[in-house]
Amino acid sequence: MIRSYKRFAAIAAAVLCSGSAFAQSNADRIIDYELANSRAYETLSHLTDNIGPRLSGSKNAGLAVTWTTKTLRDWGLNAQNQAVMVPHWVRGVEHGSLVSHNDQKIVLTALGGSIATPANGITADVIEVASYDELAKLGRAKIAGKIVFYNRAMDMQMVESGQAFAAYSEAVEFRSTGASHAAEYGAVASVIRSVASASLRTPHTGAMRYDEKQPKIPAAAMTTEDADLVHRLLAKGERVRLHLVLTPKTLPDVESANVIAEIRGSEHPDEVVLIGGHLDSWDLGTGAIDDGAGAVMVMETLRVLKELGIQPKRTIRGVLFMNEENGLRGGHKYFDTAAAREEVHKHIAAIETDAGAAPPVGFITTLEGAALSRMQIRARVLSRIAPIVFTSSKHTGADTSPLTDAGVPGFGLVPDPRHYFDFHHTPADTLDKIDPKALAQNTAALAALAYLIAEDGL
Amino acid sequence: MIRSYKRFAAIAAAVLCSGSAFAQSNADRIIDYELANSRAYETLSHLTDNIGPRLSGSKNAGLAVTWTTKTLRDWGLNAQNQAVMVPHWVRGVEHGSLVSHNDQKIVLTALGGSIATPANGITADVIEVASYDELAKLGRAKIAGKIVFYNRAMDMQMVESGQAFAAYSEAVEFRSTGASHAAEYGAVASVIRSVASASLRTPHTGAMRYDEKQPKIPAAAMTTEDADLVHRLLAKGERVRLHLVLTPKTLPDVESANVIAEIRGSEHPDEVVLIGGHLDSWDLGTGAIDDGAGAVMVMETLRVLKELGIQPKRTIRGVLFMNEENGLRGGHKYFDTAAAREEVHKHIAAIETDAGAAPPVGFITTLEGAALSRMQIRARVLSRIAPIVFTSSKHTGADTSPLTDAGVPGFGLVPDPRHYFDFHHTPADTLDKIDPKALAQNTAALAALAYLIAEDGL
Repeated sequence: MIRSYKRFAAIAAAVLCSGSAFAQSNADRIIDYELANSRAYETLSHLTDNIGPRLSGSKNAGLAVTWTTKTLRDWGLNAQNQAVMVPHWVRGVEHGSLVSHNDQKIVLTALGGSIATPANGITADVIEVASYDELAKLGRAKIAGKIVFYNRAMDMQMVESGQAFAAYSEAVEFRSTGASHAAEYGAVASVIRSVASASLRTPHTGAMRYDEKQPKIPAAAMTTEDADLVHRLLAKGERVRLHLVLTPKTLPDVESANVIAEIRGSEHPDEVVLIGGHLDSWDLGTGAIDDGAGAVMVMETLRVLKELGIQPKRTIRGVLFMNEENGLRGGHKYFDTAAAREEVHKHIAAIETDAGAAPPVGFITTLEGAALSRMQIRARVLSRIAPIVFTSSKHTGADTSPLTDAGVPGFGLVPDPRHYFDFHHTPADTLDKIDPKALAQNTAALAALAYLIAEDGL
Repeated sequence: MIRSYKRFAAIAAAVLCSGSAFAQSNADRIIDYELANSRAYETLSHLTDNIGPRLSGSKNAGLAVTWTTKTLRDWGLNAQNQAVMVPHWVRGVEHGSLVSHNDQKIVLTALGGSIATPANGITADVIEVASYDELAKLGRAKIAGKIVFYNRAMDMQMVESGQAFAAYSEAVEFRSTGASHAAEYGAVASVIRSVASASLRTPHTGAMRYDEKQPKIPAAAMTTEDADLVHRLLAKGERVRLHLVLTPKTLPDVESANVIAEIRGSEHPDEVVLIGGHLDSWDLGTGAIDDGAGAVMVMETLRVLKELGIQPKRTIRGVLFMNEENGLRGGHKYFDTAAAREEVHKHIAAIETDAGAAPPVGFITTLEGAALSRMQIRARVLSRIAPIVFTSSKHTGADTSPLTDAGVPGFGLVPDPRHYFDFHHTPADTLDKIDPKALAQNTAALAALAYLIAEDGL
């Protein structure tokens, strides 16, 4: 008797957990439609090839806002712009050479937000460290007047085992805060080893930020090849002197915008499932993987739902965030506006896609335990695309982090991450890195998940 | 009876073909010694890391002559310099942007020997062709005033199946002669797709030459990503206008040198087995695979023979050629000098190593038929390093081509070629692409083959 009750309860729970047959059937339709009729690649091709790099504050970033807004409207969607002031940092000349070694060129790129060197550059001895502890141990006596070289490589075993984002997080701290740490001990500039899982003398840029309590010093990233060269020369006991010229400028903030469009919910229009990617990119490449692909998946999700005439009970809101890369101003603007309207708690989920478009492998989510298991069951229809696995994570995306920090359940689409950091923040982040089929698969996964949650709730 | 005679003959032939037991035993010692005590990587590290890029005519190319000469002498070898005048081409600014598409940057590099654009650049429509036939069909009416874009990709099936050099030969003709072909129809510049088997927005330079009957126009190579971008835009029917600024200069010729050292033969010192690599490199990288590795294998072969006290019957002469990349002046100087002394016919073999240092897979050789089979048998001792296969080829190396064209039997060392054109002529040709173990294996193969031929004749 107890046994059969348990069995009954298990079946009942499974039925309750698995979502409505209606929603499952519509999710099926969405997946079929996207896989057969995707226009995601075509949209991405315009964004990357015709518009090009889209760094916040640039002319192209503005063009991207205008064009995506118009395109969504052409598709019959109510696209709106949410104005936001963004930083306007402009890369200038970037030149490195080893004056100690026949003026060999050092291939490097300025980190986003860096100040310029004096016009005639900085020439100083290079001192290598692998950690802030090592920096502190060397202290002002050894660091003052030098260029600090942070030589922390990505852990390739982690990358190859699928933990590329964790490996990135470990290595990237020197990019973010290395300059100010070095400045604390009197360094005149800081140069990191590019945070990279592959290189053909390929520099990786990315945002850095200054600690206002420390003097500001220029910050750049060398390619892994150049980092290896400097390391080998220092390991031989040689004196290595680097001449560094960087001429970036920080111009006044520029008005830009998040682009927002939605499929209004039929029963609970004020309850929102947010799907978001970002429209800005770094300036070196054309931002195909970071994050043209994500922005286009969001646009395409709305297009497909519109074309299929599928209207879930709750609203699906697509947001193309501005300025994810060097300020997160768009993400904060969206949150602050929602907070001011007391609408944060009406977000029942925030799904971000900002990890490229290799074949999809799953979603990370702030859900845990039984809720995570239920989601895996409810999303079983996604297994038609690929074996989609839901995994718990505290952090599911940058633009949506203000929402998830406030308690909104978060999701992040996870394409196969193993090669993402081959291209991330480099000149090689271009459309040829995108497989149209995998882009459609990612879009199908995003669209189906957003729909399932909007239809049946979380 | 006939059958047993045949058998006897076969055995006798096998013994005769297989070389002396003395030579085989010494070849064994050479291989053992090099694999256990190689200093090739250390030598290469100085050439690439401490000296750096070594384009003909540059200060660094001169330093490379001085340092390799001194190093060989430090090793007890009689290194001499054979003076040769070399071209002195200096790369300047190189800048490309799509004025038709928001001034997107086009990553490109000037081809070696190219003239400069006017100081304010050239701006013109781009027209794409895949062959000289297509160019001729379009004719002056379509080509005049335009920038011709040769979009011939390397055949990746050939590359992956081990035929990378054949795939290179097919694709490279537009780099060599494309500018003058385009100029014949009134083009104002020519841009090729980089001859590349991999790219992270990586430009591949290389020599071009002008047909003196045609106007000279600037010539550059775009990365494969940029070639794909321009191709996609043109395929959409869009007008593509490229702004191109190149400021290379051809300065007066500079006196440089081939570096020559030898192990004199004990019985026939005037009979020479030449082993050669080249000391010059392109300027973008540090020439680790092209051809620092080859130059160092030659130096190391002489060092090992010297240290082991092995003196073959015939002379082994190592030549570090100057100016392989953009003129072949060193190769011609060596040949012309030998010809003037009537010593060409005293070269019993010329072995070139200019194909990188991936694990060795064999040698190409001008030998054919029975001679080829005998060589395979004689060199069986090399199979201790790797399965070394001898394959017939008309062309076995550039620097030694004047010798082989004159009938000297030629050999070319063949490391695994599948990734050579990932790095060839790019900024990414750096020491980290070299595996010390594979470098020693290649050196062992080169040294053992040179010794076997010098001891037992060909």
